[in-house]
Amino acid sequence: MEISDILLKLKNNEISIKDAEMELRINNYELVSDIAKVDIHRMKRVGIPEAIIADCKTYEEVASIARVHLEKEGGVIITRVNDKNFASLKSLAEETKSKIRWEKRARIIIIGETLTKQGGKIGVISAGTADIPVAEEAKVIAEEMGCSVFVIYDVGVAGIHRLFPELTKLVKAGVDAIVVVAGREGTLPTIVSGLVDVPVIGVPVSTGYGAGGNGKAALLSMLQSCSVLTVVNIDAGFTAGAFAARIANLAAKNRT
Amino acid sequence: MEISDILLKLKNNEISIKDAEMELRINNYELVSDIAKVDIHRMKRVGIPEAIIADCKTYEEVASIARVHLEKEGGVIITRVNDKNFASLKSLAEETKSKIRWEKRARIIIIGETLTKQGGKIGVISAGTADIPVAEEAKVIAEEMGCSVFVIYDVGVAGIHRLFPELTKLVKAGVDAIVVVAGREGTLPTIVSGLVDVPVIGVPVSTGYGAGGNGKAALLSMLQSCSVLTVVNIDAGFTAGAFAARIANLAAKNRT
Amino acid sequence: MEISDILLKLKNNEISIKDAEMELRINNYELVSDIAKVDIHRMKRVGIPEAIIADCKTYEEVASIARVHLEKEGGVIITRVNDKNFASLKSLAEETKSKIRWEKRARIIIIGETLTKQGGKIGVISAGTADIPVAEEAKVIAEEMGCSVFVIYDVGVAGIHRLFPELTKLVKAGVDAIVVVAGREGTLPTIVSGLVDVPVIGVPVSTGYGAGGNGKAALLSMLQSCSVLTVVNIDAGFTAGAFAARIANLAAKNRT
Amino acid sequence: MEISDILLKLKNNEISIKDAEMELRINNYELVSDIAKVDIHRMKRVGIPEAIIADCKTYEEVASIARVHLEKEGGVIITRVNDKNFASLKSLAEETKSKIRWEKRARIIIIGETLTKQGGKIGVISAGTADIPVAEEAKVIAEEMGCSVFVIYDVGVAGIHRLFPELTKLVKAGVDAIVVVAGREGTLPTIVSGLVDVPVIGVPVSTGYGAGGNGKAALLSMLQSCSVLTVVNIDAGFTAGAFAARIANLAAKNRT
Amino acid sequence: MEISDILLKLKNNEISIKDAEMELRINNYELVSDIAKVDIHRMKRVGIPEAIIADCKTYEEVASIARVHLEKEGGVIITRVNDKNFASLKSLAEETKSKIRWEKRARIIIIGETLTKQGGKIGVISAGTADIPVAEEAKVIAEEMGCSVFVIYDVGVAGIHRLFPELTKLVKAGVDAIVVVAGREGTLPTIVSGLVDVPVIGVPVSTGYGAGGNGKAALLSMLQSCSVLTVVNIDAGFTAGAFAARIANLAAKNRT
Amino acid sequence: MEISDILLKLKNNEISIKDAEMELRINNYELVSDIAKVDIHRMKRVGIPEAIIADCKTYEEVASIARVHLEKEGGVIITRVNDKNFASLKSLAEETKSKIRWEKRARIIIIGETLTKQGGKIGVISAGTADIPVAEEAKVIAEEMGCSVFVIYDVGVAGIHRLFPELTKLVKAGVDAIVVVAGREGTLPTIVSGLVDVPVIGVPVSTGYGAGGNGKAALLSMLQSCSVLTVVNIDAGFTAGAFAARIANLAAKNRT
Amino acid sequence: MEISDILLKLKNNEISIKDAEMELRINNYELVSDIAKVDIHRMKRVGIPEAIIADCKTYEEVASIARVHLEKEGGVIITRVNDKNFASLKSLAEETKSKIRWEKRARIIIIGETLTKQGGKIGVISAGTADIPVAEEAKVIAEEMGCSVFVIYDVGVAGIHRLFPELTKLVKAGVDAIVVVAGREGTLPTIVSGLVDVPVIGVPVSTGYGAGGNGKAALLSMLQSCSVLTVVNIDAGFTAGAFAARIANLAAKNRT
Amino acid sequence: MEISDILLKLKNNEISIKDAEMELRINNYELVSDIAKVDIHRMKRVGIPEAIIADCKTYEEVASIARVHLEKEGGVIITRVNDKNFASLKSLAEETKSKIRWEKRARIIIIGETLTKQGGKIGVISAGTADIPVAEEAKVIAEEMGCSVFVIYDVGVAGIHRLFPELTKLVKAGVDAIVVVAGREGTLPTIVSGLVDVPVIGVPVSTGYGAGGNGKAALLSMLQSCSVLTVVNIDAGFTAGAFAARIANLAAKNRT
Repeated sequence: MEISDILLKLKNNEISIKDAEMELRINNYELVSDIAKVDIHRMKRVGIPEAIIADCKTYEEVASIARVHLEKEGGVIITRVNDKNFASLKSLAEETKSKIRWEKRARIIIIGETLTKQGGKIGVISAGTADIPVAEEAKVIAEEMGCSVFVIYDVGVAGIHRLFPELTKLVKAGVDAIVVVAGREGTLPTIVSGLVDVPVIGVPVSTGYGAGGNGKAALLSMLQSCSVLTVVNIDAGFTAGAFAARIANLAAKNRT
Repeated sequence: MEISDILLKLKNNEISIKDAEMELRINNYELVSDIAKVDIHRMKRVGIPEAIIADCKTYEEVASIARVHLEKEGGVIITRVNDKNFASLKSLAEETKSKIRWEKRARIIIIGETLTKQGGKIGVISAGTADIPVAEEAKVIAEEMGCSVFVIYDVGVAGIHRLFPELTKLVKAGVDAIVVVAGREGTLPTIVSGLVDVPVIGVPVSTGYGAGGNGKAALLSMLQSCSVLTVVNIDAGFTAGAFAARIANLAAKNRT
Repeated sequence: MEISDILLKLKNNEISIKDAEMELRINNYELVSDIAKVDIHRMKRVGIPEAIIADCKTYEEVASIARVHLEKEGGVIITRVNDKNFASLKSLAEETKSKIRWEKRARIIIIGETLTKQGGKIGVISAGTADIPVAEEAKVIAEEMGCSVFVIYDVGVAGIHRLFPELTKLVKAGVDAIVVVAGREGTLPTIVSGLVDVPVIGVPVSTGYGAGGNGKAALLSMLQSCSVLTVVNIDAGFTAGAFAARIANLAAKNRT
Repeated sequence: MEISDILLKLKNNEISIKDAEMELRINNYELVSDIAKVDIHRMKRVGIPEAIIADCKTYEEVASIARVHLEKEGGVIITRVNDKNFASLKSLAEETKSKIRWEKRARIIIIGETLTKQGGKIGVISAGTADIPVAEEAKVIAEEMGCSVFVIYDVGVAGIHRLFPELTKLVKAGVDAIVVVAGREGTLPTIVSGLVDVPVIGVPVSTGYGAGGNGKAALLSMLQSCSVLTVVNIDAGFTAGAFAARIANLAAKNRT
Repeated sequence: MEISDILLKLKNNEISIKDAEMELRINNYELVSDIAKVDIHRMKRVGIPEAIIADCKTYEEVASIARVHLEKEGGVIITRVNDKNFASLKSLAEETKSKIRWEKRARIIIIGETLTKQGGKIGVISAGTADIPVAEEAKVIAEEMGCSVFVIYDVGVAGIHRLFPELTKLVKAGVDAIVVVAGREGTLPTIVSGLVDVPVIGVPVSTGYGAGGNGKAALLSMLQSCSVLTVVNIDAGFTAGAFAARIANLAAKNRT
Repeated sequence: MEISDILLKLKNNEISIKDAEMELRINNYELVSDIAKVDIHRMKRVGIPEAIIADCKTYEEVASIARVHLEKEGGVIITRVNDKNFASLKSLAEETKSKIRWEKRARIIIIGETLTKQGGKIGVISAGTADIPVAEEAKVIAEEMGCSVFVIYDVGVAGIHRLFPELTKLVKAGVDAIVVVAGREGTLPTIVSGLVDVPVIGVPVSTGYGAGGNGKAALLSMLQSCSVLTVVNIDAGFTAGAFAARIANLAAKNRT
Repeated sequence: MEISDILLKLKNNEISIKDAEMELRINNYELVSDIAKVDIHRMKRVGIPEAIIADCKTYEEVASIARVHLEKEGGVIITRVNDKNFASLKSLAEETKSKIRWEKRARIIIIGETLTKQGGKIGVISAGTADIPVAEEAKVIAEEMGCSVFVIYDVGVAGIHRLFPELTKLVKAGVDAIVVVAGREGTLPTIVSGLVDVPVIGVPVSTGYGAGGNGKAALLSMLQSCSVLTVVNIDAGFTAGAFAARIANLAAKNRT
Repeated sequence: MEISDILLKLKNNEISIKDAEMELRINNYELVSDIAKVDIHRMKRVGIPEAIIADCKTYEEVASIARVHLEKEGGVIITRVNDKNFASLKSLAEETKSKIRWEKRARIIIIGETLTKQGGKIGVISAGTADIPVAEEAKVIAEEMGCSVFVIYDVGVAGIHRLFPELTKLVKAGVDAIVVVAGREGTLPTIVSGLVDVPVIGVPVSTGYGAGGNGKAALLSMLQSCSVLTVVNIDAGFTAGAFAARIANLAAKNRT
């Protein structure tokens, strides 16, 4: 029962104040999520699309959770997918007459409509070939949230001089935030952040053997960075892309 | 020697092409930092003020490094200060006729002029009393970068209901980014990020005893968060505040 | 030889005091387990059923250990089973004319009779889909110990508002203890414990990638919790369920 | 503004339905904490007393936070105190004409009234002399919550035989839960839990040098225990005591 | 060239003193291993048999290294073997007309003659079924070194009373050292060591899930033990067995 | 009440069989520690002296615990003492007319009589100057248990050649066990164990800075040793010395 | 556009000073990598060959990256290869008429020409059979960089005396640097470094089970070494070999 | 007794061959250290001076160990000293009429003569002010070993462009090896190594708070570096300096 219904019943003397209060108490939890509604100028949440992580679920589970999201929200993102996921999700898309898009390198499948362009612009930089799947994950989710994404791949620190001209192009393009993806020793975000004045988000990648391997050295060196930098967890391209898109869409809204 | 000087000399036949090239090679490193200049619409870097961490230096060292920054850049921030630092830095301020400000709870001293207001607005939320020094560090640096800062202190998770009305006020104020400071189990940033649509930066605080103490549990739980959230290192209020200010100033520039 | 037999022999002058003492010394170890017997009002141990963990044993080993328990105690629980375990255990059940029950999601097989209802009531809450097998493990063992179990699944922190109405139902049902199962950042037990006044047991789950993954962040954040909360090891649904059942059966015994 | 006031105003036509809804939305957060009220038979929360941890705060801070709690709730517990804390808190107690109690070994000061006896009974066992402060912390908070507490101190594993007669006394006393405090290798809770049928809570203590020192081995070995056991963080006597008291008071309520 | 040969040549004036010295310098390294020879009463090393760890080598590699040892030393032990190792080693044994013994549970194959009985007696105790392969490894190597081995398997801590009568038998048998194998929380060696006066060696086993799993809790709790106890690495049954056999053979030598 | 007393009373018809059994049940725990008594040839435990660790107790606590041990057992060892401990313990010794011995480098005080020589012989080797206090701790406790102790100090690996002649002397002396104390990279026990055929016990020492510092590298490299070696915790000279003495006294008993 | 071209255009009045400066600014990054050119006596970089790590890439990816390097640099090294990599790379070699070499034990494939001998000489020592692949990786890369490599395999610490004669041969050969590869407890580099006066580089190997396994103990004990020693990451044979070759080639250049 | 003496005696028939052999066996250990002597062209070891670490020893201990070294070797280095060490060592120097030098920033005192210049040249680069003591330690030991040392201090990564001109000067100076000292995220060695072709040794420094603090992130990121780089332990300036000097002196010897 909606709040307004309860209040109307009270107004109409159909229930007592005490009963109305009890009803409100029992149902009050619905109110909590509506913080944004109080702010009249943000009536609709820009919303990060609900995402399903596929790789620890059966194909049937993924498909059935996807169906629920698709029906309720008109769209769904599934991350860390493989070929078999695509097969079963393609059936779902056909059955529901939804568009389906498979971003193979990003290991992402999107069913339903993408947001229209919001005007936000972000950059995604990756240090090595092995970092590209994570970088693509960031790129695809940001596009999905309506951003334009400019990518620079394979600009490692060993040859730091390769970075500069590419970075200049990014700055010229006017990006609102930059996601920098790096494994092993994870230096790149620190360097990029020292050269530009837009927010830089570091994404450690689970590459590297031995001590500090699997992204640990990269994560710690980003946390210890002397530059101004925030960090997401190892391989968390999705979070970094969505965070950058939040910044960019916020900036874009003001721009227009 | 400036690039233009070298080129002028070449033009005037004072040096050969070969010598000019050698000169440029030797001095070329000065060019590298000028990325922003290529972009004509961002001619001047908004700049995060250079900061000195006081607590692993002698009082003399801090004062003499501060003097250098003050002379070169017209202002300097010193973090993690105590009473004795203030004494020696006050002399420096008086001698150089600079304004000095001591933000005691933030453990920060600022000498020289603050940036004029840039229009950016950020929120700073802290979970417990012990988190306030870190929260204040974020607040002071953001103010120093020209932002308005709205604070909510002492809103822990144990009494989650205390959070909601305060958060609403923050959203109404139109903040561009929120810094959430939390120790022990570090839950608060996750919850805040799930309720608002502005970028949320989590700052773990080095509270808590035993397993996961000293901010470790807080850091890990922020990195594992199901919400969209970026993170800085334990107690890194400075970085979080500066990062939020970058976002806010970017948004504000577009706003005007 | 029983103590009473030794004493009788002594009494009957069949053995000397010295021999009786030696007999007692040699056999004394049997006494140690009989603590409960001293307490006349607790003559029979409520007993947590003996459980076999299947997943690091061969199918033959599991079946043969199960046979021993079944014969000695009339029932046995086997955890972390798969289809092949079921096949070999089904034969055992048929052969011994015992009831067999396969709780697939809980990865548990039970052979023999379940305890009659003891009147205890527990709640089991899980944060995400991936946590359900662990939650089910807690549920099945508690039921096996004679408790009624009320479950709330898939109530994550990202949408904290979904929790409240469900939790209210649990409180209304009068549960004596609540098991809260949560992976990744492991926030849920802290929040639940802050809202109710029954004992809450947190179970970290081995989900999550990168730093703090595999349940580490969840475990540490539960140990650091500001709420009053106890914790079991990662994925230890069995222990949590049995512990909650101990509390509930104790409360129920007093209730009647 | 209270809910009932808003509803009354609506009823009295002083505000419109829309305004009432907006009021409720803004103030709804107060509702959330009232879960217990929905359950008519649990009208009043048994409540764990609000506690202040003294050892990372100045004496002034501790005293001023204590004053706030004392005024609002009629009582306050301050943990990890020393002599100087006592001096400043004694003044507060005198000024407010409150009773003050200093439990020196438990490092706890209590100002205001203790709960009347609730009938719950708990046992507290500690393995070594160094564990006593943590054990006392558990004891004092449980007493504060209205429980009777039976203690057994200095019963280590090296001489396991010392444990049995003492444990029997505890069982005879009819305790509802047992807190077992142990440092170094942390074996004791496992053994106790294997011998009794009441819930056992393990508290690792930060004793021990070298590998596994500072309570780490104790914590891990309790988490790995083959017995049914839950655990709190290292040195967390407060949490263990409060948790045991929750169980005991629940059992006691049913008893009467 | 042997030392005595060099000296003889010098004596016979076949080489100069300077050349003799140079020869000795170049060949001196052979001397180093002969410490035992200096001690006339220990002319022959009791020797721990050279062992090959099979599980990180190809079947061919294992067989060819085994051949070398067999030829040079008349016997060889291969640990962590499987069925295929047995097939290829059986061929080797047949070809060289050596005895071959496959201790399946211990995952050990022995080719060649076993030491004759040295008179040493050791006990091997294991806590759970999963610990048996490691216990067997200790047993087999000790037998191979000429000891009599008395085993007690499956005496866990959860039912501590099962331990006592078994331990008494071991003590009566007059064992010179006891190897105690235990996984998960690793309590058993501590308890055994507190009850007997022969040297006790703890072997942690890589069982257990979650925090402290894979033998970590067991190792740390043995290192933290309040009893007098030494420890080997996780799963190092071979080392523990060989160490106990060293003690026992030493004692036996004195006995005769 | 002693067992024999109970039996006598039963015999004398002063109590019934049922009461005798109850008495035995309640008091049975005393039996458990008497395992050794069953073995007629080991009537008296050789006993490791009860030790008190001083450095986490107040001077009063140490003295009062020492008094209890002294009275009950005729002797006591206090480890990790300083000058002030000596002052207060000297009073105790004078008052009780006991002998007191202060082993300064070992940080040990002994009050009461030392065991008469048991004939056991052990060696203690330390790698560096910083390891001597730990080595001395091993030496003093072994002497206290009646062993002769031969020491070799300051024989590091960097100059491995210094080790050989010293080790030969030790072997010639006929030691039954060798304790090898080493910090930093902890190599020495591995090398010694490869050269001799008596049991070698490694003691890691908490020296070393940076990664692997505080004894961690030493502990891990001893656990990973290719030689046959057992290990005690970091700085646990007491345990190593007592363990070696157990071996040596066992061997000596057979010798005579 | 080359610097000299820009300068020529300026000289020829084809562009203004301002335009030349802008051109230089935009292209300046090319300058940065040319540090070596400033030093006239080191005109050509000796260069470590660009290497591709194969084992986390598809066969197609490896082959196509190899093609790029081959075309641009005339040669390429692929590490951590298997049989299938060889098949696809052989095609590439045939197609481009390049020499291909497969170093099976080193898991390396080299396509194109090797550097001519530079005169550098290095030693590679490994402790156990399992360390050989890593040692071979060091050897092959050093050969590829033009060095002569002298190897000593299977000289463990357990039989330290086997080391000395072999090491002498290495010293006699006049090596400029020694790579020492060791797993488990990682002692060998420390000992070698204490005996010779050429630079010694330690390579920990990921062997060993349990605590300190997978190369951790080896790495830490090398970092803690009392000898003068530098270290590379676990299994990083490539880096160690290339580093040693740098030293050796430097020494050789001076030699001639 | 020297080898030649033994041989002479044998030659002179003063002892038998058997006795000579026994003498050699007992004394053979002296031979082991003489590896270098076999190699006639390296008759004298260049030697790294024996160093004493002062900060975990008493002032008396330091002085008395220093005296021994001074007398035996003519010189001694004491590291991690403070003012009081200087006072007591000054007395020693005066008494023995030795030169004494106190390198305050390096926390090193040197007594006795320095090596004459060997011709080796090394560079030392440090990233931040806090790294200078460690850098100075490297510098002083290298000078002590006869090298010329060129330093570049305070060239952090945040302003990467400051590095290039300084690095060029170093390359121009013809250094044989470069020590790069860096704390926090430890990026600098990676970048330097990518730009030059001389061996680069990374030294992590124990700066930085929170996760990865105390040099951990720096160490791990150097171990994970994509550049060719070797590493020493955290703060191990001494080792890095001595290692670089070994390389440089080797190169210099060839140069002349």
